[in-house]
Amino acid sequence: MNSSPPSDPTPSDPAPPVSPRAVEAAAKRIAGHAVATPLLESAALNELVGGRLLVKAECLQRTGSFKYRGALNRLSQMSPEERAKGVVAYSSGNHGQAVAAVAKELGVRATIVMPADSPRVKMDGVRRYGAQVVPYDRTSEEREDVAARLIAGSGAVLVRPFDDPGIIAGQGTVGREIARQCREADLRPDAVLVPCSGGGLVAGCAIALKDAWRDRGESVELFAVEPEGFDDTARSLASGRRQTIEPGYETISDALRVPMPGEITFDINSRLLTGGLTVSDDETRAAMRAAFHHLKLVVEPGGAVALAAVLHGRIDCRDRTVVVVCSGGNVDAAVYASVLSDGG
Amino acid sequence: MNSSPPSDPTPSDPAPPVSPRAVEAAAKRIAGHAVATPLLESAALNELVGGRLLVKAECLQRTGSFKYRGALNRLSQMSPEERAKGVVAYSSGNHGQAVAAVAKELGVRATIVMPADSPRVKMDGVRRYGAQVVPYDRTSEEREDVAARLIAGSGAVLVRPFDDPGIIAGQGTVGREIARQCREADLRPDAVLVPCSGGGLVAGCAIALKDAWRDRGESVELFAVEPEGFDDTARSLASGRRQTIEPGYETISDALRVPMPGEITFDINSRLLTGGLTVSDDETRAAMRAAFHHLKLVVEPGGAVALAAVLHGRIDCRDRTVVVVCSGGNVDAAVYASVLSDGG
Repeated sequence: MNSSPPSDPTPSDPAPPVSPRAVEAAAKRIAGHAVATPLLESAALNELVGGRLLVKAECLQRTGSFKYRGALNRLSQMSPEERAKGVVAYSSGNHGQAVAAVAKELGVRATIVMPADSPRVKMDGVRRYGAQVVPYDRTSEEREDVAARLIAGSGAVLVRPFDDPGIIAGQGTVGREIARQCREADLRPDAVLVPCSGGGLVAGCAIALKDAWRDRGESVELFAVEPEGFDDTARSLASGRRQTIEPGYETISDALRVPMPGEITFDINSRLLTGGLTVSDDETRAAMRAAFHHLKLVVEPGGAVALAAVLHGRIDCRDRTVVVVCSGGNVDAAVYASVLSDGG
Repeated sequence: MNSSPPSDPTPSDPAPPVSPRAVEAAAKRIAGHAVATPLLESAALNELVGGRLLVKAECLQRTGSFKYRGALNRLSQMSPEERAKGVVAYSSGNHGQAVAAVAKELGVRATIVMPADSPRVKMDGVRRYGAQVVPYDRTSEEREDVAARLIAGSGAVLVRPFDDPGIIAGQGTVGREIARQCREADLRPDAVLVPCSGGGLVAGCAIALKDAWRDRGESVELFAVEPEGFDDTARSLASGRRQTIEPGYETISDALRVPMPGEITFDINSRLLTGGLTVSDDETRAAMRAAFHHLKLVVEPGGAVALAAVLHGRIDCRDRTVVVVCSGGNVDAAVYASVLSDGG
């Protein structure tokens, strides 16, 4: 990072709900606890895309996904009174594991509402950290309702998976690290692609990355990547208004099955993102295999969609420097073995 | 690292063939080219061993193993005349890929002598970097002889996989990074365990690690880890003389099938190591699964033996801080899928 402190936007650009300063504060809060994950590169992948491809290996983060950053930033700001009442989170699994792990570290009781069909690796992960799992049926119940009932009984604090400034600022530390690592390697990315569910990770990254190069008047293209059928952010960005996807779709990317962008995340993303991209499940599987072969990284389906977008030509990488975030690695062994067996 | 320069041993301890200064010089040579791989940790693994387990994720190195470090350090010191004649290397695969990759970067012609039954991922890797592969039959030919014939014809430079001071110094940068990363996290390892074939990696690490804590009079235990049946270093360390293993054994750890320690590496290892440990192939497979589940790392069999030794109680980790090197990740997808399917 350069030495001047991050600035909030100028008055002509109304302040977004999360500032670069909030991301900087989050980075200080999580330093020494979260892994500063490496930015990896492979000669074979560079050759494949005809440019320079850098992979932010966030699957190596504690609890196996970037969600640890946001959870730690959010929970460590809770008051003693709040901590005493415990936390409730709803989650497809990665946010749940992260909240459970941080809660355990801070001595806070955690209850996690999860789809009954979550990958076993994620349910087991949540339980290993001592949290209580409350399963619900994705097709007939709203997770927000289940969480609301739990909170009504206990007075516990709801820790939302993405639509929360503390969570977004924490996830933004991924983007801040990307900026620092690029500068250390004397690189300026032309584009950064980030997996997108509710949009917290890409929103946080956008805040940090736009700020990192603001002094030079240089722009970095920023894309949210979603699986086909769950392109609510892509369609919302295109229309300028939050869109809800039709029910009935399925995807291998269990972490990205959110039907609608968050209110705060969309406010940020609609200002800062270049656009949304989508990939098919087969493209995601191929990206998981590429990460296995060329990066030695275990990436879960939802964590591999940004890599998939680049490997399948959704943006032109020729003679450009492109960063993709591989956001998580929590995939069941049987699913992973079958993905490896699918391809060459 | 602390600020004083590394010292060569005192006169009472006769100088080993590779000095801490040589490792420091190697670190400068490879900086910005090799990945400074992360030191990872998992709450689940810590709980399992009852101590603090840190994993040096060298499978994330370029070309998928630590061998890139030694090859870069060695080849970058070749004269223009030597470079013009090309290089020859014999290798179970990882050294070959590393030499091929570095040779390509430096514009040097490379020929790699490899067992005909090497994993396809390693043969393909060597060819991808534009090197010529010369296969040989492990059971009827000596790789040194095949390489000698090639060199007699071309005048090319032989780049040995381990018994070479430039290679050992390069691999030692792994140990130097471990020391720096431990200090940054305010940790002092009680023991460091390193996979061992010819002994170059563990020798280099030992030089760097013994030097790193020399000022404080603190000792770090250092262990070479080998697969059962290929415990030539363990037996050589126990007897004080280089031992050759009996032929006829097999192991899943294709990278560690060397029958005898190197001359230079044994000179170093016999002075600096605490001892040798061995693990079974089943223990290695379980360690590969543990790395998948808890670290999201693809580790090849030979790269997982040190982790296996810790997870299967070869040393006592209770209330101690132990570092293991996961040295490579070049494993065929079919083998990996079958290892994942074996276990829980």
